[in-house]
Amino acid sequence: MTEISDQSLEADVFARDCSSRTTLQAVTGRWGSLVLIALGESNYRFSALRRRVDGVSERMLSQTLQNLERDGMIVRTVLEAIPPKVEYHLTPLGRQVADHLSGLIELVQDNMPAVRDAQARYDERRGAGD
Amino acid sequence: MTEISDQSLEADVFARDCSSRTTLQAVTGRWGSLVLIALGESNYRFSALRRRVDGVSERMLSQTLQNLERDGMIVRTVLEAIPPKVEYHLTPLGRQVADHLSGLIELVQDNMPAVRDAQARYDERRGAGD
Repeated sequence: MTEISDQSLEADVFARDCSSRTTLQAVTGRWGSLVLIALGESNYRFSALRRRVDGVSERMLSQTLQNLERDGMIVRTVLEAIPPKVEYHLTPLGRQVADHLSGLIELVQDNMPAVRDAQARYDERRGAGD
Repeated sequence: MTEISDQSLEADVFARDCSSRTTLQAVTGRWGSLVLIALGESNYRFSALRRRVDGVSERMLSQTLQNLERDGMIVRTVLEAIPPKVEYHLTPLGRQVADHLSGLIELVQDNMPAVRDAQARYDERRGAGD
């Protein structure tokens, strides 16, 4: 195995041209994160996944799934059936990412009362100040 | 303390109107995540932070900092000096979020060779297929 490019040597999300920044955005983005978490709960077919991720359009879900498949986070499986069924599940790497995301989402959800308090105080200061 | 709204009872990022989804996006977004990780390393003044987060515009950094401050993730401190110096640091909640993000970013950075392999295979299939 030979190194294909310098990028293989070290990834740094702080560098604007590092491809790891794009992958990080794909897994933490508006829909990518929710799709990964959902697939961490169970495998899903497209239509069921769309119901789970409330508010996503068919086009955005399709694009999100393609990006996650391309990055090796999920696998698209065509099941033998008439008509054929397509199912999505996590790869081992996708599972690791989903586990990290779950922890983060739980933290945010659990702290929403504190976040809303902070928002109210901020808005009050802003209203009083400038 | 009384419950102000139903939202205080249970946060669910899968629900399209839940405010936790907005907060999750703020901390995982393109710039929010990098700012939180940077402030996890040390406190920063605006100009130094802008150099650390390679590629962010002054306007976007300013907006990102305001959003994170409003959500109670960071604190903006004006230091006594002539001219006054402004410094940003994490709140305890921001620190917890930054720790989770660091783990996720490390995972993505460490797995970039595998991600790039997956991308190459995907592009090859696409090129050969449709």
